[in-house]
Amino acid sequence: MNISKTALVLVDCENDFLSPDGKLYGLVKPEAGKEDLLSNINSVIDAAHSKGMDVVFTSMVFDPGYPGLEEGSFGIFDAVKNAGALVSGTWGSEIVDSIHIAESDKVFEKRTMCTFQTTDLEPYLRSKGITTLVFGGLVTNLCLETSIRSAYDRGFETYALTDCMAALDPAVHDMTVSQNFPMFSKPVDHNNFLEMVS
Amino acid sequence: MNISKTALVLVDCENDFLSPDGKLYGLVKPEAGKEDLLSNINSVIDAAHSKGMDVVFTSMVFDPGYPGLEEGSFGIFDAVKNAGALVSGTWGSEIVDSIHIAESDKVFEKRTMCTFQTTDLEPYLRSKGITTLVFGGLVTNLCLETSIRSAYDRGFETYALTDCMAALDPAVHDMTVSQNFPMFSKPVDHNNFLEMVS
Amino acid sequence: MNISKTALVLVDCENDFLSPDGKLYGLVKPEAGKEDLLSNINSVIDAAHSKGMDVVFTSMVFDPGYPGLEEGSFGIFDAVKNAGALVSGTWGSEIVDSIHIAESDKVFEKRTMCTFQTTDLEPYLRSKGITTLVFGGLVTNLCLETSIRSAYDRGFETYALTDCMAALDPAVHDMTVSQNFPMFSKPVDHNNFLEMVS
Amino acid sequence: MNISKTALVLVDCENDFLSPDGKLYGLVKPEAGKEDLLSNINSVIDAAHSKGMDVVFTSMVFDPGYPGLEEGSFGIFDAVKNAGALVSGTWGSEIVDSIHIAESDKVFEKRTMCTFQTTDLEPYLRSKGITTLVFGGLVTNLCLETSIRSAYDRGFETYALTDCMAALDPAVHDMTVSQNFPMFSKPVDHNNFLEMVS
Repeated sequence: MNISKTALVLVDCENDFLSPDGKLYGLVKPEAGKEDLLSNINSVIDAAHSKGMDVVFTSMVFDPGYPGLEEGSFGIFDAVKNAGALVSGTWGSEIVDSIHIAESDKVFEKRTMCTFQTTDLEPYLRSKGITTLVFGGLVTNLCLETSIRSAYDRGFETYALTDCMAALDPAVHDMTVSQNFPMFSKPVDHNNFLEMVS
Repeated sequence: MNISKTALVLVDCENDFLSPDGKLYGLVKPEAGKEDLLSNINSVIDAAHSKGMDVVFTSMVFDPGYPGLEEGSFGIFDAVKNAGALVSGTWGSEIVDSIHIAESDKVFEKRTMCTFQTTDLEPYLRSKGITTLVFGGLVTNLCLETSIRSAYDRGFETYALTDCMAALDPAVHDMTVSQNFPMFSKPVDHNNFLEMVS
Repeated sequence: MNISKTALVLVDCENDFLSPDGKLYGLVKPEAGKEDLLSNINSVIDAAHSKGMDVVFTSMVFDPGYPGLEEGSFGIFDAVKNAGALVSGTWGSEIVDSIHIAESDKVFEKRTMCTFQTTDLEPYLRSKGITTLVFGGLVTNLCLETSIRSAYDRGFETYALTDCMAALDPAVHDMTVSQNFPMFSKPVDHNNFLEMVS
Repeated sequence: MNISKTALVLVDCENDFLSPDGKLYGLVKPEAGKEDLLSNINSVIDAAHSKGMDVVFTSMVFDPGYPGLEEGSFGIFDAVKNAGALVSGTWGSEIVDSIHIAESDKVFEKRTMCTFQTTDLEPYLRSKGITTLVFGGLVTNLCLETSIRSAYDRGFETYALTDCMAALDPAVHDMTVSQNFPMFSKPVDHNNFLEMVS
């Protein structure tokens, strides 16, 4: 792994998903509540920081009133709207306190499941010569998976950190990791990552 | 369903996937070999044609030599390359003979899992005022799923025709349809579709 | 003009461009200082509001430190960086006070000349059934022109409000309006617009 | 110039623009008929080939019947449609015979002014580690300019080959090259390029 060409990308690590008081915590609780999840995520963040690797966060954030979703919405966006979650400027859309985000890490706000479609993440990464992306975060089979699929289609080398993510339930996690991720990423766990960057 | 604002989108209905002599048929055989698959697909195509609904095909096609995938490729693109499949100008990349494609149906060639990223499908649909997309085709949890995810992120109303598609195996099909598709589409079967357009 | 399918899009109406104390005002002064510019812009905003037409603002905004532009930057982004302009959270990146922005108008932040590439403007517009865009703002031959070119390529019907914009100098304005805009938009002035919506 | 990270991109070098019998030749004749245009273009192609630099062609091509442009079209697409030009499978959409295209050069078909929006050019370039693009071709202030603007927004280092292109007329060429190109590219001529790669 060429560290200068690699970035760690952490998707939707927001209070509304990951904090027990978050508005969507119920949706991912069986997985997000796993004891090691935050420590695994922090271990890869710490390693990346210590090596000078780029660390970026991408967060789904909606304007108050959920413009564009007023009527006819369905699926995950509708669930977010109905929960009143992930609103710009609220605690729920902030990165979880206990996550080791550094001041120099960038946060990209997105309005889509995909991490690239409504952000300048790709030109930012390209301007730095980054061609490999290592993904963790939430939700395994939703924003995270869409983002990895899109990174693959955009020609990035992609890794999926299988123990640094949370799905809607463990069975979905297992199938996503075993059946889907190998089709468009290289699945590794946080220990593999620590070895790769050391 | 407003027929004039709806298009039927059929992904990767190519010989290399769906014909017993196709180079990737082995990959999807348990699902692609299901007796009713082609007749279900044809029933929705016939209904769309009879109602004057737009029908478009999107096909993954690679130039000879798989430019851009010469080295370092992995995942599904690598599997396609290693099989020598889906090459431009070959039988394998043609729409299956028994599928009721009409001369007026458009075929969009793509080089990605996503049906939109490397095609002019979106401006084409937008120019016709189409805002609802009904998806079928291959592979349930690969190009088809990436395409539906991207259509959802682009603000289309999306339907997934659950018995007009084939996954890598039946368990993956079931989980994709039950756990993932409702998050970014409205799953229906071909009979539901026939009722909706009648 | 079908008002329910039309949005007014105002590009880069930020203090750093349009206010005499703005950091880039010198760049566009001969044009931005034109007596009628702000009143023309406000007349189309007022008309749009009175008819219930969607009004959106798109603003180029950079994070502090201009991430991605640290080295090797050139062109307009480099000029913005060197001027220390358009920084997130500063007065310079706010919409000019005297512009009649309403609370319900949306502001989309972009990091590119193009108004679509790094924003969710397109899915937002599509979700509302909007297919016609009427453009005004800054800079005629830079962000504004790139945005109109991209809207045209995306299949929107596009109008350019020729007396609601400012170029780097009058000769560039004239050539852009006469030679380029008719190739990818329908040039009109604010009076034409007022007639079209009345 | 790091040759292994650079590609030469030649836009719309098709018979319908550049050959005296082409259907759009009249549109660009004063510029496209310049004695040195084709020899300048060939000199940079030859140099790129001799250095092993990637050379790609991007060509605007429409399906027969101009789907998506049936009604309501305007601007340059409408002009192309009315001329019956740039149709897939016809001589008019082929690269001009006298241009030194090599068999290994790739041709990307696009349906937009932009060279990236409906093609897989960006993932192709990214997979090769290419971060600098040198642009020539047609039409200076239309597809070529849109493509350079978009490359800049995507984070590429961009060069414009000012004597390897043709505008609608010489005055437009001059203003585009002097006023617009420096904002989002580094303008050079074919001799500068030959020095840079030698």
